[in-house]
Amino acid sequence: MSETENLAKTRAFVVDTTRSQQCTWKPVAIDDVQLTDAFWEPRIRRNRELTIPSQLQQCEETGRIDNFRRASGKKDLPFQGIFFNDSDIYKWADAAANSLAAFPDPDLDAKLDAVIQEIADAQQPDGYLNTYFMFEREKERFTNLKDMHEIYCAGHLFQAAVAHYRATGKSSFLNIAKRLADCLDNTFGPGKRSGACGHEEAEMGLVELYRATGERRYLELADFMVQQRGMTPGLFGNSKYHQDHLPFAEQTEFVGHAVRHLYLACGATDIVSEKPDSPYRGALEALWDNLTRRRMYVTGGAGSRWEGEAFGNDYELPNDRAYTETCAAIGSVMWNWRMLLLTGEAKYADLMETTLYNAVLPGLSLDGMHYFYQNPLADRGSHRRQAWFGCACCPPNVARLLASLSGYFYTVGSDRVGVHLYANSSANLTLPTGDSFAFGVETQFPWDGHVAFTVREAPARPVRLHLRTPWWAESASFAVNGQLEGEWEVEGDYIVIEREWKAGDVVTLDLEMTVQRVETHPHVLANRGRVAIQRGPLIYCVEQADHPTADVWDIALPDDGEFSAEFVADLLGGVTVLRTQGVASDPSEWEGALYAPYLRHSEMETHLVEIVAVPYFAWANREAGPMQVWIPTASPMS
Amino acid sequence: MSETENLAKTRAFVVDTTRSQQCTWKPVAIDDVQLTDAFWEPRIRRNRELTIPSQLQQCEETGRIDNFRRASGKKDLPFQGIFFNDSDIYKWADAAANSLAAFPDPDLDAKLDAVIQEIADAQQPDGYLNTYFMFEREKERFTNLKDMHEIYCAGHLFQAAVAHYRATGKSSFLNIAKRLADCLDNTFGPGKRSGACGHEEAEMGLVELYRATGERRYLELADFMVQQRGMTPGLFGNSKYHQDHLPFAEQTEFVGHAVRHLYLACGATDIVSEKPDSPYRGALEALWDNLTRRRMYVTGGAGSRWEGEAFGNDYELPNDRAYTETCAAIGSVMWNWRMLLLTGEAKYADLMETTLYNAVLPGLSLDGMHYFYQNPLADRGSHRRQAWFGCACCPPNVARLLASLSGYFYTVGSDRVGVHLYANSSANLTLPTGDSFAFGVETQFPWDGHVAFTVREAPARPVRLHLRTPWWAESASFAVNGQLEGEWEVEGDYIVIEREWKAGDVVTLDLEMTVQRVETHPHVLANRGRVAIQRGPLIYCVEQADHPTADVWDIALPDDGEFSAEFVADLLGGVTVLRTQGVASDPSEWEGALYAPYLRHSEMETHLVEIVAVPYFAWANREAGPMQVWIPTASPMS
Repeated sequence: MSETENLAKTRAFVVDTTRSQQCTWKPVAIDDVQLTDAFWEPRIRRNRELTIPSQLQQCEETGRIDNFRRASGKKDLPFQGIFFNDSDIYKWADAAANSLAAFPDPDLDAKLDAVIQEIADAQQPDGYLNTYFMFEREKERFTNLKDMHEIYCAGHLFQAAVAHYRATGKSSFLNIAKRLADCLDNTFGPGKRSGACGHEEAEMGLVELYRATGERRYLELADFMVQQRGMTPGLFGNSKYHQDHLPFAEQTEFVGHAVRHLYLACGATDIVSEKPDSPYRGALEALWDNLTRRRMYVTGGAGSRWEGEAFGNDYELPNDRAYTETCAAIGSVMWNWRMLLLTGEAKYADLMETTLYNAVLPGLSLDGMHYFYQNPLADRGSHRRQAWFGCACCPPNVARLLASLSGYFYTVGSDRVGVHLYANSSANLTLPTGDSFAFGVETQFPWDGHVAFTVREAPARPVRLHLRTPWWAESASFAVNGQLEGEWEVEGDYIVIEREWKAGDVVTLDLEMTVQRVETHPHVLANRGRVAIQRGPLIYCVEQADHPTADVWDIALPDDGEFSAEFVADLLGGVTVLRTQGVASDPSEWEGALYAPYLRHSEMETHLVEIVAVPYFAWANREAGPMQVWIPTASPMS
Repeated sequence: MSETENLAKTRAFVVDTTRSQQCTWKPVAIDDVQLTDAFWEPRIRRNRELTIPSQLQQCEETGRIDNFRRASGKKDLPFQGIFFNDSDIYKWADAAANSLAAFPDPDLDAKLDAVIQEIADAQQPDGYLNTYFMFEREKERFTNLKDMHEIYCAGHLFQAAVAHYRATGKSSFLNIAKRLADCLDNTFGPGKRSGACGHEEAEMGLVELYRATGERRYLELADFMVQQRGMTPGLFGNSKYHQDHLPFAEQTEFVGHAVRHLYLACGATDIVSEKPDSPYRGALEALWDNLTRRRMYVTGGAGSRWEGEAFGNDYELPNDRAYTETCAAIGSVMWNWRMLLLTGEAKYADLMETTLYNAVLPGLSLDGMHYFYQNPLADRGSHRRQAWFGCACCPPNVARLLASLSGYFYTVGSDRVGVHLYANSSANLTLPTGDSFAFGVETQFPWDGHVAFTVREAPARPVRLHLRTPWWAESASFAVNGQLEGEWEVEGDYIVIEREWKAGDVVTLDLEMTVQRVETHPHVLANRGRVAIQRGPLIYCVEQADHPTADVWDIALPDDGEFSAEFVADLLGGVTVLRTQGVASDPSEWEGALYAPYLRHSEMETHLVEIVAVPYFAWANREAGPMQVWIPTASPMS
């Protein structure tokens, strides 16, 4: 076994591109980075201490684990819950494994082992594993790939098993995954059955299993599954809902079920990362443009339609009925991370940052135990986080992302280190050459744009440090050991500083973090005459709890108002609050009417009101009430 | 048999309140009124000559009639189409019967008789009739009232059978209806089974069957079905989708499936019309307020959500994703007609008029053979009318409404005649006393607000003529025999002129028909900074076909622009076009961006453009392209 293989098998990566020849960057292990900040560290701690344990309890109480005990014959019960509930167990195991990678925990390790044993006991002699298709439904296996999420569940198993193997070195879960993957590979593929899952997911799971085992059949099966889409006749009636309308290489628009299309993009990116002849790269770039230029909320959220949990048409981005499933945002983060590793382009890190703060994080309550499935950008107070869902895809998806988050900050190359996200942290990175590169980061991010890097260890040769300048920073300046902007260059939106680093070297980076008003392309009907407020990576909102004298849906923001920014430690876990003077109208003058001759009511009297904006990710953690991200504009007051 | 009963059984009413003690008005028969105008007459003729025959052909080609032949054993075929497809046949028969009432047609009469014979042959010995629940599904009868629309189909049969009986005097269809109603009555009711249909409809069908047969059991069964909703525990899990969340008498908001709730309101109104002790009247009034003040499009369209074809929250009225099913608009017309007969209040006639022109009529193409199921108020050109649907509820619903339309214009009382809608027409009404009251109407309605009534025959005693002054008329004036506003009074929004009318008396009414801009309550997020254009009863839109130099989504309407109104005979079947000067911007300056710092793009250059607005009902009858009802406002140009 070579040194490289050994490394790959004992280090926990979000995705392992260490041997992916098409990739620009190699990842760092989850435990190479310790987050020590006041923003992410407490969230990841809550994830470890509250979220992951409470989710295991939910899975136990809702029969999700009993379904495995039923399958193995230990319990004589009917199947409980939704037919794809196995996937929740796998996502929970994925979260637990990633958490163990960074934070060894014998108790959690033992609980995870126990769950894995239940999974192992439920596996069939031929490797098949899905607790819904047992006993009376055994003959229905692989008979309805379109609707029944069988291979989707397998994909989540693959991801969890690889994470467990990488985090613990144990092969117990990985062996289950290999047997199940072999079962799929014995069934589907060229010369065997056509077929892929109606809900994509297994594609990326299979590529990661290939990376962990070296078994190329899994990579080829993943590619086969991507190729199944858009054939004539179609696997799923060429439906857009299932991304079956066109071959993937010809797709240029995000359509249908949002999570599915984003997961498909993840899988296709993984394949492009491994196969030099893959035809998918142009489609991936076209899809990214379509997402960011036509079909994405300002939060990074994706999928605007409730019907079908789907992408809408170009510019179809309603605020009150935004669907923006938390899982779709997670899928976007996963995809952008893969595109960043592949291409090295900063725009993917930019979108990953935006989406993480503004579209993933709202899905989780500050207490770490309540979840949003949908994330509207305007509400009257009825949309509240829930402790669990019948379809509980989002909660363990958030948990596994948070558990692995430290793996998303930095990347390495032979002579390069990439810095993509900013947080107080300590990093002990290993370059592909085997050299160490260690540094500490001090910053109050995301509340302040000042970042200081202190090198602790570096090889005795030049290393290029890539620092992302985010799209929201109107200006960026830096200094090395106090010397302003010495030798440096720009690659895309990265500042690149090359030097032979010494322990004690300090790089300071100052990203201008001002309050910005954002407006939308005029074809977005929902946002006419409205602006969103952004500061640094964060999108803000107005919540009723901060506005005693007016309904926040009646507040308008004058074009010339200046904002003050103040960090309030005891509000919403500590957030920077933005304040300015606004005007509020009183629609009671409408006396209940819905329509009226123009100008009769638009000349309503207004009164002054202090507008208090808080980060959108923190909304709905206080008493219920109206909320709005897109705030109506008003004429200048001066 | 008394004179009254005889009359009731041989005259074709939309709904027969001639003996309903609670009702303010009695209806006139469909054939008491001949529409001779250039707006409705050609549409009703197309309905008779093209729509009704082509729908029969569609029903035949799609197996809808074969389903009856299968049920009667004449054909050995599987059931074809959707499980509630029987209802389309009944709605078609309803349309055909209503058409025969006004326009005898031996060929159509024979075709309808043939269809009725197929229906009769499919009826079971116990009176049961639903072609889906035959043979292998016979044991599933009445086992899933929530989802399977069994009683809904029966309701449509009742309505069609009564219409056929009234139009032709034949009892063939009515006898089928009585046997099926007896089957339901033997099954459901106090001391028998609980139950009602998940899709309301049978309630109003049963009341009409009671009115046609005098069999009070049918009225009581209808009331029983209304009472089934909102019990504890709920018939349908107390779901809002099925209006099962509250007893009807306690309902104050339109919720769930829009067509169902509106049909339920129709049935409840029918019951209130017949039963003096009915507790539903307050709910009906509360629901009407909720609809018109919170949950209705400016077109009168109802049901904003695609998911569940449902009402949304208060003020949730998106334009591009408006669902506004054609059937929901028809349900609203049917309900408002019933409320008008019950109360005599003009607001119900107002809404009936608005909804008819702006929410029902867009559902039908100018060629009379293509249909909208959904009616968005903004579109990019992809939403086009279809020749038929798998779920074809809307097409025959439009046909039966148009076939009976002449029955909606006028009402009578012993000493009163009500005029609720305006069109060139000839009316030979019979008052409840047996007296004749005949008059002609000359008007260019809906293009012009001048209306002239010429009395042709009247009893030798005072009769009160009620003329509705619509809500859109900023002023109304009238003259009797050239004498301006002699003796008259106002009742609600009716001008009431009482006199002993002589043949040759002329009343002229002038309703001010100006172009109005309409704005929306500020909590309707979709309409901020936008106005709709209304002239008389018609809502207008801008279509791409009239705007060669700008995308109609980029056009804004200055606050001070004056409109010209011109009737264009060769456009869209003859419409009054509104023109004014507007401004257009060019979003290509956005260079594909979706979001941008505020004011970077909003200071886009604009160019002048002639705005050409056409009636919304006529949209999508030319080449496909963008359309918008709610037009952005711009600053005054002068």
